[in-house]
Amino acid sequence: MIAVHLEDGKVEVREAAVPPRNEGYALVRVLAAGICNTDLELQRGYYGFAGRPGHEFVGEVVESDAPELAGQRVVGEINLACGACEWCARDLGRHCPNRTVLGIVGHPGAFAEYLTLPNRNLRVVPPAVTTEQAVFVEPLAAACEILEQARIPPGDRVAVLGDGKLGLLVGQALKAHGAEVHQYGRHREKLAIAERAGIWTQADGDLPPRSYDWVVEATGSRAGLEAAARMVRPRGTVIMKSTIHDAVQLDTAPLIVDEITLIGSRCGRFEPALDLLERGAVQVDAMISERLPLRKAPEAFEAAARKGVLKVLLLAD
Amino acid sequence: MIAVHLEDGKVEVREAAVPPRNEGYALVRVLAAGICNTDLELQRGYYGFAGRPGHEFVGEVVESDAPELAGQRVVGEINLACGACEWCARDLGRHCPNRTVLGIVGHPGAFAEYLTLPNRNLRVVPPAVTTEQAVFVEPLAAACEILEQARIPPGDRVAVLGDGKLGLLVGQALKAHGAEVHQYGRHREKLAIAERAGIWTQADGDLPPRSYDWVVEATGSRAGLEAAARMVRPRGTVIMKSTIHDAVQLDTAPLIVDEITLIGSRCGRFEPALDLLERGAVQVDAMISERLPLRKAPEAFEAAARKGVLKVLLLAD
Repeated sequence: MIAVHLEDGKVEVREAAVPPRNEGYALVRVLAAGICNTDLELQRGYYGFAGRPGHEFVGEVVESDAPELAGQRVVGEINLACGACEWCARDLGRHCPNRTVLGIVGHPGAFAEYLTLPNRNLRVVPPAVTTEQAVFVEPLAAACEILEQARIPPGDRVAVLGDGKLGLLVGQALKAHGAEVHQYGRHREKLAIAERAGIWTQADGDLPPRSYDWVVEATGSRAGLEAAARMVRPRGTVIMKSTIHDAVQLDTAPLIVDEITLIGSRCGRFEPALDLLERGAVQVDAMISERLPLRKAPEAFEAAARKGVLKVLLLAD
Repeated sequence: MIAVHLEDGKVEVREAAVPPRNEGYALVRVLAAGICNTDLELQRGYYGFAGRPGHEFVGEVVESDAPELAGQRVVGEINLACGACEWCARDLGRHCPNRTVLGIVGHPGAFAEYLTLPNRNLRVVPPAVTTEQAVFVEPLAAACEILEQARIPPGDRVAVLGDGKLGLLVGQALKAHGAEVHQYGRHREKLAIAERAGIWTQADGDLPPRSYDWVVEATGSRAGLEAAARMVRPRGTVIMKSTIHDAVQLDTAPLIVDEITLIGSRCGRFEPALDLLERGAVQVDAMISERLPLRKAPEAFEAAARKGVLKVLLLAD
């Protein structure tokens, strides 16, 4: 098979062996995979990554010892948890200290013709969800995670900062939850996607200070957290979604005086995301900027890093 | 009467007029007042303060249009809220945007023979609580505020960083709540106060990483928040009590990956603090380092700023 190899910032497509399937695992033929900001960060050298990236994917089960999975179209939770620790017992395998992570830590990723994952990580994609849409399950699950961590009452106003891929999914997931979402960004063409979902948007102008009980920081920039902290009202909550690999300057005194809560938020369970896509409550088709075959992965990485580009898909030949 | 005047870092005792009592207010003769770190920060020039400081006090009501207060020994909530805004309607006058604050913002403070406060701010001190103990109601209320913001289950282990006045009150308030408190500091003689309350302490040595679901940062130092963030477990909570007047460097990526919650926490309702003191569940007598008469306020401020000193009281002559 062919597979992407990433090392020292260089993306190559190489011949590789089909990965061996262990007991309890499925062998999956990848139909489509998405390039995520995390993949671009791996390319920039964060985490000292070298190997096969890719963690947003849709595939078809080729071989598994779970008969109900055979031949199914699936997506997969990316954390491979040990199943034996305290975190796993609490159904929080996403925080298992012994975990490997598909395409990120210790487990070969989805930018390949085949991958393996434990059967228990796989979720069958409902027929109403197209393969391209299902590529968004993983990042949409990360957006939905906000609602598992913060009890945002439907009807509450929420500011979402950022109009990138994650910001747009967050805005739509919160809108589907019933929140009144205000999305702040810098790109009219990206914000248009939010507007079509009925979200109020602002492309430029000042950010209103102390105005929201809930602010989601999804800018991906160093300045985002300070901006979010200024927009939140006393006793309000800032949800932090941007993993900036750099120390952020933060004046904590106003956060203490105003008793602000900051919540770090990462990936989430797939079920709510699959449900949103199946119900058509979140629109993702307009977020696909480019489609390239797997063998053109180097060009796809270049495209994904370009300004204004949203999701770039790698498709099976 | 005499009163403290603080300006440009200089503490002076001056003759001053007894403050006029408005309708709905009480005139209170101050029996004892405590010097708090905030007072030292005012002296250092934060908030551009000039005027009469002091917000931890116990007094005797000399005059009031609330007959039930006449002659009573009282403490007073320090935020003078407007009573008309949305925050006041939510019983969160402590966040009222129109508030003044006793001895801090726009209302003359307690380092004087007399002060005025709205009747509704005053709480009668139960007979079982001594006047000196009741000086601790305000900072103890700030410690108790943690329990109103974070639902810490009794029996849970909590790390408290810092062995200053606030840290020691936090440790004891959490211990009284039923938490298993581990207090980390640098001063064996201060930590001895926590130990006598049955709290496990550590005066030096490494701070254990990723070890607590709850960490309270009460060091008063810039390095405290990073240390707290390293000690908290995935999905855990850091409660921020130190108002550092300086931008803090914070690496947010691990907070997001581990889905940490940070909660800013300031002052609290007085009732739980009065209750803890009345029940003898929190011991404060050992935290009094010095007692000086009001006219010796300059010496008292110097003493309060000295290393190793805990609470300095200003007493009525």
